[in-house]
Amino acid sequence: MTAGILSSIHTPADVHALSAQQLRDLCFEIRTTLLDYGRKHGGHIGSNLGVVELTVALHRVFNSPHDRFIFDVSHQSYVHKMLTGRAEAYLDESRFGEVTGFTNPLESEHDSFVLGHTGTSISLACGLAKTRDMQRIATGESAIGNVVAIIGDGSLSSAIAFEGLNNAAEQGGNLIIIVNDNEMSIAEDFGGMYGQLAKLRASDGTAELNLFKAFGLDYRYVEQGNDVDTLVEVLNEVKGIDHPIVVHIHTTKGLGFDDGEEFDKGSDGCNQTNPQPHAGKCEANHWQDPEASLGKPLDARKYYGEMAMASLERRFSNEPGLVVISPATPGSNGITRDFRERAGAHYVDTGITEEHAAAFAAGIAKAGGRPVLATSATFFQRTFDQLQQELALNHVPATLLIFGAGISGADNTHSGTFDMTMFANVPDVTCLAPASGEQMLDMLAWATGPSDHGVVAIRMPGEQILSLERATDMAFDPLQRAEEHDPAVNIAGECPFSRYQIVQPGKDVAILGLGNTMPLAAEVTSTLAEDDETHAAITATLVDALQYSTMDAELLTMLADGHRLVVTLEDGQLEGGWGEKVTAFYANSNNAKASHVRVLNFGASKEFTDRVPLDELNERYGLTAATIVSRIHGILNE
Amino acid sequence: MTAGILSSIHTPADVHALSAQQLRDLCFEIRTTLLDYGRKHGGHIGSNLGVVELTVALHRVFNSPHDRFIFDVSHQSYVHKMLTGRAEAYLDESRFGEVTGFTNPLESEHDSFVLGHTGTSISLACGLAKTRDMQRIATGESAIGNVVAIIGDGSLSSAIAFEGLNNAAEQGGNLIIIVNDNEMSIAEDFGGMYGQLAKLRASDGTAELNLFKAFGLDYRYVEQGNDVDTLVEVLNEVKGIDHPIVVHIHTTKGLGFDDGEEFDKGSDGCNQTNPQPHAGKCEANHWQDPEASLGKPLDARKYYGEMAMASLERRFSNEPGLVVISPATPGSNGITRDFRERAGAHYVDTGITEEHAAAFAAGIAKAGGRPVLATSATFFQRTFDQLQQELALNHVPATLLIFGAGISGADNTHSGTFDMTMFANVPDVTCLAPASGEQMLDMLAWATGPSDHGVVAIRMPGEQILSLERATDMAFDPLQRAEEHDPAVNIAGECPFSRYQIVQPGKDVAILGLGNTMPLAAEVTSTLAEDDETHAAITATLVDALQYSTMDAELLTMLADGHRLVVTLEDGQLEGGWGEKVTAFYANSNNAKASHVRVLNFGASKEFTDRVPLDELNERYGLTAATIVSRIHGILNE
Repeated sequence: MTAGILSSIHTPADVHALSAQQLRDLCFEIRTTLLDYGRKHGGHIGSNLGVVELTVALHRVFNSPHDRFIFDVSHQSYVHKMLTGRAEAYLDESRFGEVTGFTNPLESEHDSFVLGHTGTSISLACGLAKTRDMQRIATGESAIGNVVAIIGDGSLSSAIAFEGLNNAAEQGGNLIIIVNDNEMSIAEDFGGMYGQLAKLRASDGTAELNLFKAFGLDYRYVEQGNDVDTLVEVLNEVKGIDHPIVVHIHTTKGLGFDDGEEFDKGSDGCNQTNPQPHAGKCEANHWQDPEASLGKPLDARKYYGEMAMASLERRFSNEPGLVVISPATPGSNGITRDFRERAGAHYVDTGITEEHAAAFAAGIAKAGGRPVLATSATFFQRTFDQLQQELALNHVPATLLIFGAGISGADNTHSGTFDMTMFANVPDVTCLAPASGEQMLDMLAWATGPSDHGVVAIRMPGEQILSLERATDMAFDPLQRAEEHDPAVNIAGECPFSRYQIVQPGKDVAILGLGNTMPLAAEVTSTLAEDDETHAAITATLVDALQYSTMDAELLTMLADGHRLVVTLEDGQLEGGWGEKVTAFYANSNNAKASHVRVLNFGASKEFTDRVPLDELNERYGLTAATIVSRIHGILNE
Repeated sequence: MTAGILSSIHTPADVHALSAQQLRDLCFEIRTTLLDYGRKHGGHIGSNLGVVELTVALHRVFNSPHDRFIFDVSHQSYVHKMLTGRAEAYLDESRFGEVTGFTNPLESEHDSFVLGHTGTSISLACGLAKTRDMQRIATGESAIGNVVAIIGDGSLSSAIAFEGLNNAAEQGGNLIIIVNDNEMSIAEDFGGMYGQLAKLRASDGTAELNLFKAFGLDYRYVEQGNDVDTLVEVLNEVKGIDHPIVVHIHTTKGLGFDDGEEFDKGSDGCNQTNPQPHAGKCEANHWQDPEASLGKPLDARKYYGEMAMASLERRFSNEPGLVVISPATPGSNGITRDFRERAGAHYVDTGITEEHAAAFAAGIAKAGGRPVLATSATFFQRTFDQLQQELALNHVPATLLIFGAGISGADNTHSGTFDMTMFANVPDVTCLAPASGEQMLDMLAWATGPSDHGVVAIRMPGEQILSLERATDMAFDPLQRAEEHDPAVNIAGECPFSRYQIVQPGKDVAILGLGNTMPLAAEVTSTLAEDDETHAAITATLVDALQYSTMDAELLTMLADGHRLVVTLEDGQLEGGWGEKVTAFYANSNNAKASHVRVLNFGASKEFTDRVPLDELNERYGLTAATIVSRIHGILNE
């Protein structure tokens, strides 16, 4: 191979200039780079290893940004980034942080969209193509040439992707949909269409039943999806096509990955305790945990997820209707491969289909079952209509476990800041925020118990809670904790969490925490209790709200006696959130004292943030004990 | 025919007891009943006329509620209701109001779910079947027998329906999916799959490309979808089947409807000015406007929709990127057939695909176009994830026209109470609430203009505004108003609507209205200005907020001078809404005066309401001038 081709690629034009042999060498070098980057930095390496040749061929044949590529969900865009001026961010360890894990127009004119949720590429491509065609009709030209959507077989199971396929054929005009079929979703593929995709692969694309043709689309199959020469040839043939076509290519996810490598036990991919499905294949999470994380303890998502699953598993043999549903991302949420195997029919991976998963849960619950739907805060957004209609309006006893919720340094497509404003403003959803592992288990027991409570959303505890618990003496294995804890509530009765709980009584000022902010609330309370040179000690009242779906009118009104100030702390967006409801409760109260209580709200601003460190965000939002205490002193001394 | 069979049907068992001839007579009687009901009461008559025989056959063959029927979107469930003890609600005019237009478990044990949004039936059916199968494994029995989803070809274009198809095959077990193919969506079908469905119909189900088989499902075609004998035979054959099957039946929407009948011009169905596509076919909206509405003026949705479309149409010839997108419900929103025909490629009906429509709009906008996506407040819920990710996060200049927003007497599946809490809590969405037709046109001109403003949601004015405008002298034809109005704002500049507007200066109390509540705000202001025996006249300040996405901090702070009380009025849910933000703004203000302003919020409670008259809701929520004025007096006199 020619050494260091990659560093000489600054724009796609440099790819055009390579010889055929250099193109193959470039693929080799990119694969090596990805492996090295993955080991050190982590990331969605498996999917990127599968599309090395495809991406090189795309940039060889097409002319970006005149021709437009839309990478679905875009976690497979690393190679694309390397070829569009961002190679150093993968080659040079000191620059690893310079690019995001997703496409982003702020980084490059070669990225059309910020994308991190699945299935939208075909629809976006239809839109680009539509404007192009309208411009051409009007003026004879457009700044946009070919429009190419690149979507994985796993993403295809996602609702909107089907809508896109169905609309693409009807729209007509140039549109190339590359189906990158690596026989894997995030975990295994799930769904009836995958059997048919397998038949297409086995028949070199000639099998009679063809989903894409059934949507009215032209179709072409490419078995050699990791052969750059073949791909260049095929793409040259479809370039400039005058109608929508699906180019179905067969690739190998994780190609080049050494089977012998072992990663941390928490990752749910290819390692000794969780053997990989077959050579070269691994789940997307693989290498989300790079070498740097080896030996580190579980993160909060996995820790509390494992604890929740363990507590449910104990009941499977007696409760046929208890079913855990995960729309394709089990590993991140502590739903381990071992658990899934033991759970059998009590576990369903629906594929990347959040909407189906929510309506499916409604059906299970309506039939007398107790479904537990587990996914990320950000992915629950995709179920919003089903949350309101099929679940809440139908008052079915479904439990929703919200993972990854809360302000964090996440990228802007996976933020956990917005879930409370979504869930709590839907009628008839009970929204619980545990502030400890055992509280979470109690809430889960009640939510999945016989009580007629409708939908219950449980916001799984975050790192704030986990690090506090880790510092204590308690047996720290999540499975052991689940084993040892029996529900401390009446699981058949009224909601045991509807009343705010006074953790420490005091006066003058009440600090109301909720779930992840309880440690901060306690810190504020103890800081206030200290004398300093300018302020006398204040014995504040500390309250654990437990839930954010209704106001505890009785307790809030009672606090008006003896408290001039109420402070709310929430780990999420202020606008539309919980604290504002507390403020409005007091302002609109008919109780004369209550209507004069001052309220201060602390939480996140309404904004998208992209990989801003959490400490910086907490400073920005005033979510630190120092800022909160200072604000309290200011008001009490007015 | 035997007269009056229908009145003798009280349970499905009565259908079982009929002779074959009586079954046919029953179908005839039901069809006559539907036509008469439709003429007088309105409703989704077309779809129900198409499924008369299917529904009778279902109840003949299966044993509800042991066997479960899930009618997708459920507006075609009238016949089902007639056969399950609710016939009088269709036969007796005085009892028309007794049943909802959708299935509802509160009405009957034969209704499994409250449903009014599209595409969820297969997923719900999967859930019922899953619990049944788990129960059978554990105990050998279940209260649930056959599970049957009934879904129209129009609904099939909806994202979640595809997810359901894909999951059904994988799940296995008894599941019967009846595809009721009447060759129509709400308007025409849209999408590439419909060409293939046509080939299946033409080939008696034998065409090679078969979408359902491509999803791994068993399949059976029935051409005689309006022949009750055939249907009984086929359903008997699939009853008790041990795996999922699609029974694709060909029916005629609106069968029995007399082509010669004419309805009001506003409805977008089969009438003289808008000729029907072909005999017996009409859009779903047909007979949403029954005889009682003949000669009545346009409702607010259609009126302001027509006005908006007319103002856009003037620009089509010069702006190739200006594209109106309607996910299948154009008629209700004033997007008339005539407009659609004139608009040509500037109009796209994407079928029932709200998610695709939103991402499609993002694509159009990113390519330099100006998409205008128009649908109901309640259906925008289906785009929530795309609203946040593809639209807002990508800061694309897409305009969203929200129709049917606001508190109303609607059923619980089509409420317009929840949109503000959804839109306004997403970062980077400008949410505008016009209080007049001309204000709406100005907002639309700016939103679709060259300004770099990102996503703009415009909450179309409601009946409150329309009735006020109707009472004035102004030329009242919507098209004429659009023609005569030139934008009174700089369409290329910063948002001209970011500042709240003082309509009338005053003191002591400020009344803040927003969009539809401006007439009420004005009424409160004028009531306060009157002396009465106990209260002196108050000259209140009247403010038009114009938008609900950001606080006008400057104006709000300024109001603290001279105003002890600020009152917000919103036509939507209080929790998570606009008024709470105003309250929290004052409470958290660093300005000493501002932080002591009292705030009162008026709006809707967080609850689902089902066909509760608007006046009753306004009373319940205190949204009347009398209540608001009394509350203001109470506080000012404290």
